[in-house]
Amino acid sequence: MAIITSVDVVDVRFPTSLTADGSDAMNKDVDYSAAYVILRTDDPALSGYGFTFTIGRGNDICALAADRRAQPLLGRDTDELLDDLGTTYRFLKSDSQLRWLGPEKGVEHLAMAAVMNAVWDMAARRAGKPLWRLLADMTPTQLVKVADLQYLSDAITRDEALAMLTELEPTRAARIAELEQTGYPCYTTSAGWLGYSDDKLRRLCQEAVDAGYRHIKLKVGADLEEDIRRLRIAREVIGDDAHLMIDANQVWDVPQAIEWVGALAEFKPLWIEEPTSPDDILGHAAIRRAVAPIGVASGEHGMNRVLFKQMFQAEALDFCQLDSARLASINEILAVYLLAKKFDVPVCPHAGGVGLCELVQHLSIFDYVAVSGSLENRVTEFVDHLHEHFVDPCIVEDGAYRLPAQPGYSAEMFESSLAEFSYPDGTYWAQRIAERT
Amino acid sequence: MAIITSVDVVDVRFPTSLTADGSDAMNKDVDYSAAYVILRTDDPALSGYGFTFTIGRGNDICALAADRRAQPLLGRDTDELLDDLGTTYRFLKSDSQLRWLGPEKGVEHLAMAAVMNAVWDMAARRAGKPLWRLLADMTPTQLVKVADLQYLSDAITRDEALAMLTELEPTRAARIAELEQTGYPCYTTSAGWLGYSDDKLRRLCQEAVDAGYRHIKLKVGADLEEDIRRLRIAREVIGDDAHLMIDANQVWDVPQAIEWVGALAEFKPLWIEEPTSPDDILGHAAIRRAVAPIGVASGEHGMNRVLFKQMFQAEALDFCQLDSARLASINEILAVYLLAKKFDVPVCPHAGGVGLCELVQHLSIFDYVAVSGSLENRVTEFVDHLHEHFVDPCIVEDGAYRLPAQPGYSAEMFESSLAEFSYPDGTYWAQRIAERT
Repeated sequence: MAIITSVDVVDVRFPTSLTADGSDAMNKDVDYSAAYVILRTDDPALSGYGFTFTIGRGNDICALAADRRAQPLLGRDTDELLDDLGTTYRFLKSDSQLRWLGPEKGVEHLAMAAVMNAVWDMAARRAGKPLWRLLADMTPTQLVKVADLQYLSDAITRDEALAMLTELEPTRAARIAELEQTGYPCYTTSAGWLGYSDDKLRRLCQEAVDAGYRHIKLKVGADLEEDIRRLRIAREVIGDDAHLMIDANQVWDVPQAIEWVGALAEFKPLWIEEPTSPDDILGHAAIRRAVAPIGVASGEHGMNRVLFKQMFQAEALDFCQLDSARLASINEILAVYLLAKKFDVPVCPHAGGVGLCELVQHLSIFDYVAVSGSLENRVTEFVDHLHEHFVDPCIVEDGAYRLPAQPGYSAEMFESSLAEFSYPDGTYWAQRIAERT
Repeated sequence: MAIITSVDVVDVRFPTSLTADGSDAMNKDVDYSAAYVILRTDDPALSGYGFTFTIGRGNDICALAADRRAQPLLGRDTDELLDDLGTTYRFLKSDSQLRWLGPEKGVEHLAMAAVMNAVWDMAARRAGKPLWRLLADMTPTQLVKVADLQYLSDAITRDEALAMLTELEPTRAARIAELEQTGYPCYTTSAGWLGYSDDKLRRLCQEAVDAGYRHIKLKVGADLEEDIRRLRIAREVIGDDAHLMIDANQVWDVPQAIEWVGALAEFKPLWIEEPTSPDDILGHAAIRRAVAPIGVASGEHGMNRVLFKQMFQAEALDFCQLDSARLASINEILAVYLLAKKFDVPVCPHAGGVGLCELVQHLSIFDYVAVSGSLENRVTEFVDHLHEHFVDPCIVEDGAYRLPAQPGYSAEMFESSLAEFSYPDGTYWAQRIAERT
């Protein structure tokens, strides 16, 4: 047995705003950041690493919240915590004073994600398995026990969840074998940021096609004429067979979204992503009815499982883009996957930023192996930024994620990266700040 | 003209958990707290005071977020800021990096509420008017300009809002004269906390009736047999004519809420408050259909205007209980009042805690004077706790709020209260902590 002896939370920020990586109609300057949690034990061989993702300012607020949320873990026996991750999750979640600050949304929920991501990473490391494998080796009963089904029983019961998981259990191994050959299909957003020139857009689209991608995503919503010009360029490069997706990052009201997407219909987008407020379930449903056959995708700002439950009940989504650092780790993410299976909506997780690709590969693989059992209409985001900071970076070949092999949730960053990019005292930021003053 | 010269944020916590004040089925230990913002200028006569409300732990996180959110106000000309409060609000809201942490929910939104509450307090002080009067003296055009209508145009247009306000403008003075006679009707929750004994419950119900209250609210949801016993006691004391409300504080799933409320129907509650997750718009609508004629009330955890828009669109609420410290101050609260008027749902603001009664009296008075023009089915919460800490405490007589007369939003606390209850260094907490260690 090992005892948790320390919680360290690091505010890590990468200066991505300098290159316009990640620029879109809502977010003009973006410094990809992580509130990064390190759980250490008295066993030097057993630690846990996790984070939530932000885009710069406020990352310190998430770091403070994560540090507070993790304190009850200090001095606890890791076997006790990791043998029953449902109870551990509910134990951390049970602070009613902190609950008031959400409930289950915003900074406190991002902090819960960071802490539980580190706990799940530790659980996978203790088992000597990558997280997707740890999950794929759990029985349906064990999975349902860790899933947070509170407030969901009007949409899915414990017995329904158990039956869905049990039905796929005998064929898990065959799907693992298949993915070991093919990998899990992904798409790229690297080509489509608003800050890029037409030439850079054209070149990046061509590179994406050459790299084997069949799906390309472009940011839209700042200027209609510009959107039409950029979509035309993209279609010229990728042709009519490849899929083109568009992402408005919440800039429109509902009527405006319907009008603007209609004006882009000629380019046959597979989906419009985040057309309006991520909280607007009924608005997404109205947009979906109006823009069909163009699909509606949302979820990177989906605050919790109760929002996704309603998105499914209202038939508001064609694609569910849950976020691995915004939902409260596997306990809540699993509940959303179970709902998505019940309502037959494909989950295409949001990724990019820093470290999200490392996390979501585990989720998508597990979903195919144990929950949905399907690859139909499923493609997971991949953005080729900042992977060099991770000890176990995701590997993408021919437009597909290779299966992670190292133990854990692939969340660990290099000490050297933390030393350089921790804010404000890391070597990079200390120099930037010194230059400014 | 005056320049904003300092932002001070104080973490103030009152040890209410010692007396079981505020205990309910979700929140067993509650220390009513405020992240309290003080904006000072180079004019000693002009300051602004505002806060958001929490129940203890995490109040420091809100205080940090409020301090960060308010920084852009430093050095700004108060005339410029206060002459155009719509632009000031959008200026503070426009930080896209902080937006990522919500958007518009959780800690960051509570912080925005605290800061903008202080800005509105300063605006009313500058005008030498109580806030309700400052608002009642604004033209329909001015009011629509400050209201945050983003993401609402599918439910209410700017022109509809303008027309509603214009229709009531000629009769505002008559309603002010009426309220100066009658005050604004309120109800009490002081009687109904779960932590109280049956004798204390009986005594407090009798005292409430004797004090002129026609509405009494009890907490339910922990134990059905106990709820039945306590509701029977309350009905015995208050009789059949007075209104009894029940509040479950989010403890139920949707099917359980329908069953439990059905078992309490014999006591004819006016409303069931927070029967399930505050995010569950469709769940509230399902419960409302099932428990009618018992009404459904919710909103104290209503995170933003987009949630309330959908609550109205889905016909999920009989009573809207918006919170003055959770919504982003007048700019967003006004938008919710306009939606409520459009959808004909009475607004009965949440209050209690610390300082919320001081704020909501201004909102209810303004609503009657300028937005709804109606008192039908409207009653504002009042809890008789902690008013002694406020420089301009609310005054309730014969079950009604008297009209505030002093300039501002009634949010200012005494320096002596801050010195005693600031956490952890105030004299009260320093001693408590010393005793513990």
